[in-house]
Amino acid sequence: MISERMFDLGSRRSAIRELFEYGKQAALTVGEENVFDFSLGNPSTPPPEEFTETAMEILRNEPPCAVHGYTSAQGDFATRKSVASDLASRYGAKISPEKIYMTCGAAASLCIAFHALVSSKDDNIVAVAPYFPEYRVFVEGTGAHFRATKPDTVSFGIDFASLSEQIDEHTRAVIVNFPNNPSGALLSSEALASLAALLREKAATFGAPIYLISDEPYREITYETPAPYLPDFYPDTIICYSYSKSLSLPGERIGYVALPDGVSDIDRLYAATCGAGRSLGYVCAPALMQKILAKNASMTSDFSSYRENRDLLYSALTALGYSCVLPQGAFYLFVKAPNGDAVAFSEKAKELNILLVPGDGFGCPGYVRIAYCVDRGRIERSLPAFAKLIRILR
Amino acid sequence: MISERMFDLGSRRSAIRELFEYGKQAALTVGEENVFDFSLGNPSTPPPEEFTETAMEILRNEPPCAVHGYTSAQGDFATRKSVASDLASRYGAKISPEKIYMTCGAAASLCIAFHALVSSKDDNIVAVAPYFPEYRVFVEGTGAHFRATKPDTVSFGIDFASLSEQIDEHTRAVIVNFPNNPSGALLSSEALASLAALLREKAATFGAPIYLISDEPYREITYETPAPYLPDFYPDTIICYSYSKSLSLPGERIGYVALPDGVSDIDRLYAATCGAGRSLGYVCAPALMQKILAKNASMTSDFSSYRENRDLLYSALTALGYSCVLPQGAFYLFVKAPNGDAVAFSEKAKELNILLVPGDGFGCPGYVRIAYCVDRGRIERSLPAFAKLIRILR
Repeated sequence: MISERMFDLGSRRSAIRELFEYGKQAALTVGEENVFDFSLGNPSTPPPEEFTETAMEILRNEPPCAVHGYTSAQGDFATRKSVASDLASRYGAKISPEKIYMTCGAAASLCIAFHALVSSKDDNIVAVAPYFPEYRVFVEGTGAHFRATKPDTVSFGIDFASLSEQIDEHTRAVIVNFPNNPSGALLSSEALASLAALLREKAATFGAPIYLISDEPYREITYETPAPYLPDFYPDTIICYSYSKSLSLPGERIGYVALPDGVSDIDRLYAATCGAGRSLGYVCAPALMQKILAKNASMTSDFSSYRENRDLLYSALTALGYSCVLPQGAFYLFVKAPNGDAVAFSEKAKELNILLVPGDGFGCPGYVRIAYCVDRGRIERSLPAFAKLIRILR
Repeated sequence: MISERMFDLGSRRSAIRELFEYGKQAALTVGEENVFDFSLGNPSTPPPEEFTETAMEILRNEPPCAVHGYTSAQGDFATRKSVASDLASRYGAKISPEKIYMTCGAAASLCIAFHALVSSKDDNIVAVAPYFPEYRVFVEGTGAHFRATKPDTVSFGIDFASLSEQIDEHTRAVIVNFPNNPSGALLSSEALASLAALLREKAATFGAPIYLISDEPYREITYETPAPYLPDFYPDTIICYSYSKSLSLPGERIGYVALPDGVSDIDRLYAATCGAGRSLGYVCAPALMQKILAKNASMTSDFSSYRENRDLLYSALTALGYSCVLPQGAFYLFVKAPNGDAVAFSEKAKELNILLVPGDGFGCPGYVRIAYCVDRGRIERSLPAFAKLIRILR
C-alpha cells in the first residue's frame, strides 16, 4: 500500500550517494585524511565574501517579515530583473524578467521543465550521453520515456547519428549539459551548429517544436574558453540553471528556468512552467537567497583551485598511464577504466579508499568519474594509491 | 506540445494569489494603507531574534562550504536529532531522527507524502473540509483522485457520516489540518478519538492501513488550548510540518515529514518518502535553515499580536452582525457570507478594498476567509468598511 516506484527510488540510492555514505563510514576506521573521496560534486571553494556580507547585511538591516516572507511563485521581481541583466551582460541574452522562474536549484529546474513539456505517456525526452544520472529519474517522474544517445568517447561531444535515431515524433526535448558532468567537455560551436541544424530538421519533419534543454550549472567554471550561449545557436532553448556550483551553495537550493525571447509558444510554456512548479509543491524559491541575488546575480566563487586540481590530477594520472580527455570545465575528470570494466575498477579503487563513480549510470560504461572539487592535499595524498591501483590492474 | 494540465495550473492562479496580486494593483490607486488585504497567510510577526542571531553567527563563524554544502537528502543528522528532541519535549513524541525527512516546506512535505503513498490511478486521498485548496492540486499531481468530506459548519470539526462515505478500498490516506486553515478550529479530543475509531474500522474492513496525514504548520499558534498530538490517538499518522508560520519564514521553505514509531510499514514508508523527494527534484532542504534548526528547533515567533487581532476582529465583526466561530488557533477568521453567496460577497467587499477569499475553494461555500496576520492598524482602518459592507448587503 506504498508506491513501489518511490520505494525503489528511496531504497536504491544513487551510486554517487552510496559512495559518499561509504566514504563517511571508511573515515571512521582509516581516518578522514586517508579516504580519497572523489564521489560528490560538493564545491570545495567558498562562496565569494560578497555573498556572505550581503546575506549578513540583509539579515541585519531589512525587515525580517519582508526578507523571509513569501515571494511571488515565479520569484521576486527584483531578483528576476537582476538575473535578466546578469544574463544580458554575460551573453548579450535577451530574456525578459517576466520569463524567468526562480527555482529550488537545478533538479527543481529540470523537473519543472520536464513536467511543463510532457503531456502524454508516449512522450520522450532524449539526453546526450554521458549525462547526469538523475535525468532518468526526473523524466520518468513525469510518466514519459527517458532516452539517451550513445556517448562520443573520442571528445565527449555529440554522437549525431545516435541522436538522430533517438528523436521521433514523440520527442518533446533534447537535454545537454555543459561543461559536461561527468566528462568536463564543452560543446564546440561546430557541434552546437550541427545540433541546431538537426533539431530544426527534426522539428520540421514532425511539425512541432523540439526544445533544447540546456542544463548549465557549471556554465561559469571553464578553463580555456568561456561556455557558449545556446539560444544564439537554437532559439527554442530552455535554460535550466543553478547557483549550486557557481556560488558554491549546493545545499541552499537556488536556481532558475529562463525562456529567452523567441522561444516557441513562450507565453504558454511559461505558464506551464509556473503550473509545473505549483503541482510539484515548489511554492517559491528560498527567499533570503533571492534577496541576495537581487543585489548581485553576477558574483561567482573563485575557481582557481579547481584549475590547479585539474592540472595536477590530469598530469599525474596520464603520467601514471591512465587515459582521459583534458576537461575544459566543471570539476570532473572522466577516466577510462584500465581494464575496461568501470564497476570492477571502481570496486578495486575502493579497496585503496579511492572513491570513484562508475560511468555506467552516466550512460557511458568503461569510464569512471573523479570529482576533483576537493582540497589539493587530498589529491596529492591520493597519487600513491592511484599508482598502486594501476600496477594491480596491469 | 505543452502540458495542458500544467498550463491550466499556471494560467489559472489560485483565488488567493489572484486577490493578492489585485491588492498590489489597488494600492497604486487608493494608497497601500487603504487596501484591506486579508487574502494571504503571510506572517506579520517577525521571527524570534534568536533566529536571526543564530543565522548571523553561523554565517560569521562556520566554514561556508560546510554551511552551504549538500546535506544528506533526508537532512543533516544534527538537524533531524534537534527536531526529534523538540517533538519529544513538546509532545512526548517517540520519533527517531532516522524517520524524519527534512523538506522545502509544507507543500513539499504534502507532495512527498502523497507521492510516497499513491501507487495507482484508482487510489484516492480524502480531505476533511474545509481544507487548504492546494491539497487538490498536490493529490491530482500524483495521478490519484482527490476527495473531500462535506464541511461541518457548526463547529468546523469533522462530518463523520460524510467521511465514512468518502473512504473506500482505494483510500490511501485521510488528511486533516489543525488549527484549521481556513476556520481556525482545533480538533477536539473527542473528535480525534472518533476519527481514530473510524479509520481503524475502515482499515480493518479493507485490510490495509489508512494513513492519517496531519498537516500542522499552525500547530504552535493556538489561543486557548494547545494542539493535540495525533499519533496519541491514531498510530498510523504521518506528520507534515513547516516552519513557515511558527518561525514566520514562509519564503524560506523549510519543514519536514516525520513518521512516529509504530507507523505501519515504517521502513518502507520512509524509503518511499525519500524516493518521492528524489523523484520530485528535492535534493535537500535549504542548508542554512537546517543549520539554524540544528541549534534550536524549539523557538517560535511571538504570536501575541495574532491573538489581539483575533479578539479585535471577532468582537468588532460579530458586533456589526457578521457571524463566525471564534478561532482557536492559526490566524484566520471564517465568516459566513451575509447573503449566503461567498463569491458575490467577496466581490462586493473588493469594491470597498476589502480582500477576502471565498470559501468555495476550501470546500466550504457560503463563507469567506479573513487572514488577520496583518498590522492592527489595518484592521482598525478596515472596520468602517466592514460596517458599510453589511449595510449594503442588508
